[in-house]
Amino acid sequence: MQTLNVDLGDRSYPIFVGSGLIENTQLILPYVAGQQVMIVTNDTIAPLYLEKAKALFPGKQVDSVILPDGEAFKDLTHLNLIFDALLEKQHNRTTTLVALGGGVIGDMTGYAAASYQRGVDFIQIPTTLLSQVDSSVGGKTGVNHRLGKNMIGAFHQPKCVLIDIDSLTTLPDRELSAGIAEVIKYGLITDYEFLEWLETHMSSLLSRDQDALIYAVLTSCAAKADVVAQDEKEGGIRAILNLGHTYGHAIENHQGYGNWLHGEAVAAGMIMAADLSHRLGWISGADLKRTQSLIRAANLPVDAPKDMSVADFKALMAVDKKVVDGKLRLVLLKALGQAIISSDFGLEEFEASLHSFVH
Amino acid sequence: MQTLNVDLGDRSYPIFVGSGLIENTQLILPYVAGQQVMIVTNDTIAPLYLEKAKALFPGKQVDSVILPDGEAFKDLTHLNLIFDALLEKQHNRTTTLVALGGGVIGDMTGYAAASYQRGVDFIQIPTTLLSQVDSSVGGKTGVNHRLGKNMIGAFHQPKCVLIDIDSLTTLPDRELSAGIAEVIKYGLITDYEFLEWLETHMSSLLSRDQDALIYAVLTSCAAKADVVAQDEKEGGIRAILNLGHTYGHAIENHQGYGNWLHGEAVAAGMIMAADLSHRLGWISGADLKRTQSLIRAANLPVDAPKDMSVADFKALMAVDKKVVDGKLRLVLLKALGQAIISSDFGLEEFEASLHSFVH
Repeated sequence: MQTLNVDLGDRSYPIFVGSGLIENTQLILPYVAGQQVMIVTNDTIAPLYLEKAKALFPGKQVDSVILPDGEAFKDLTHLNLIFDALLEKQHNRTTTLVALGGGVIGDMTGYAAASYQRGVDFIQIPTTLLSQVDSSVGGKTGVNHRLGKNMIGAFHQPKCVLIDIDSLTTLPDRELSAGIAEVIKYGLITDYEFLEWLETHMSSLLSRDQDALIYAVLTSCAAKADVVAQDEKEGGIRAILNLGHTYGHAIENHQGYGNWLHGEAVAAGMIMAADLSHRLGWISGADLKRTQSLIRAANLPVDAPKDMSVADFKALMAVDKKVVDGKLRLVLLKALGQAIISSDFGLEEFEASLHSFVH
Repeated sequence: MQTLNVDLGDRSYPIFVGSGLIENTQLILPYVAGQQVMIVTNDTIAPLYLEKAKALFPGKQVDSVILPDGEAFKDLTHLNLIFDALLEKQHNRTTTLVALGGGVIGDMTGYAAASYQRGVDFIQIPTTLLSQVDSSVGGKTGVNHRLGKNMIGAFHQPKCVLIDIDSLTTLPDRELSAGIAEVIKYGLITDYEFLEWLETHMSSLLSRDQDALIYAVLTSCAAKADVVAQDEKEGGIRAILNLGHTYGHAIENHQGYGNWLHGEAVAAGMIMAADLSHRLGWISGADLKRTQSLIRAANLPVDAPKDMSVADFKALMAVDKKVVDGKLRLVLLKALGQAIISSDFGLEEFEASLHSFVH
């Protein structure tokens, strides 16, 4: 087992990464302050891991709530089911919520923990590659609104994160690839060497080689932790983590949440951001092709959905959080391994890039 | 105009108290960081003050959302109407929410601000005595759940608070008295001299004498600010502000939110806490009678609702936030002007006290 510490002052916490961790009761128990635990999971994960997760907390009052699986249910209505369970089981302010599942479960459980009685503890046990390398670091929690993704939420840090790499054995291929999209993102935004490693180890990741997965998860979490430690509340540099996300959110929003997986939309969005970066003369045509090849090697989309238009993208990107006082800001690539946040481009270049993907 | 500074480090903010403040555009504008303002109010307050409030922000994009008036609408469903308005009008992360109304509007607007895009600014313009002396200090925000009051929320401090004492001229008598309940509370928990002042100035307050109101509002806010500065997140001492609230929440919950005003329920609850304090030998029979006389002089209830039972109180108090690991903790009086948080009483004393109020 390896431990990565996320350094956020008095909100610092450890991420444990390894095999067989969900059967190790001594690891997690020191992070439970009170006598009550509420495990939040979904109907896909519950049959696989809920009983094991319950056994992690001997001697505690352990309750659970099982939500329907999917981004389509990441809303205030389903969030309220967590509050229902907490109140029906009389959980008090010393309770600990445990997120057992992917990014949707992590985001909803974290926001429920941030909001229940104005803030209680929570622990993450992410079971998908995407949630292991993304939502397990950074404290972003929340739910979607019909007019925008993640528009309602809070910053709330977990007490610890338990990443059991064995949980990836039950992950469908499509979701593994979606997770790799975020892994590639860390290479693109801050770590050129990791990008090179990914170019040579993609087949190991896709065949779920344990050592390759542990290395990719740890390197990704460390890259994210480094950015988040510099800028916890996303005043500046943290926004580079959103490479591909402004485009990606537009795709998810247009297609209906859950039809395109988040990682798939981000993959296409990263190509769109790389294309604009190339048009601005920041990265070469060869760099753009390398990026496309890597995304394609991970079995991820390099194109926008066929039924979207330039107008769709423009409308959906305008309500995104990256808009400050009316000016569109995007995360773009100055080079492979170096992202920047920029509004330093003309509308015509932005539109020309969109036109190369959609009608 | 007088200014009270609430000292919370980098979350410090001023409270302005005086007459005619809602017509003073220079006062509030420096606290609006961006170009967008969303005023949240209700259908009682909107016809009286919304146009004046809009005029406070010349040159800004000023939008508004009008909620139905009342505690019954303080829930996630109505909170979502605020998010609807923010997203429909494309408010970004630099927006400022303005709470124009009583405590319900303040709590909901504050929680919407805490949650919208994971946190934006907000300003309070409390228009009821209760909200001026209670929710304008302390940063507690939130909504109710059908199983408990204020169970979903966040700590989120405003950028400033504007208390225009003139808004009390339109306040119904019953709501003025409800506000006075919280004013009396500050005397009971920390300030014996203020309690004596209230005993001699109650008729001035009830007749809405401007000087008496300004003194009572400032003294109450200062008392609360002092407690909150010691304990922002309610780890300890801050809980004394809940004198009468555990009983009071049970009353509100049983009667249906809004049928008993919050201040009325707190008034009865303070008498119940004083009764238990007397049974424990901490305050004298004479002190209990003085407390009852003062509450009665403010036209507030000194008894629990006739249709509640001991079992009702016990059931409803058990899910309250004052329960830590199964043991009931209450705010009680060691003396007039000195509250403590205690679980140092027997169940039989607690029940005997309840039996003196209800069947």
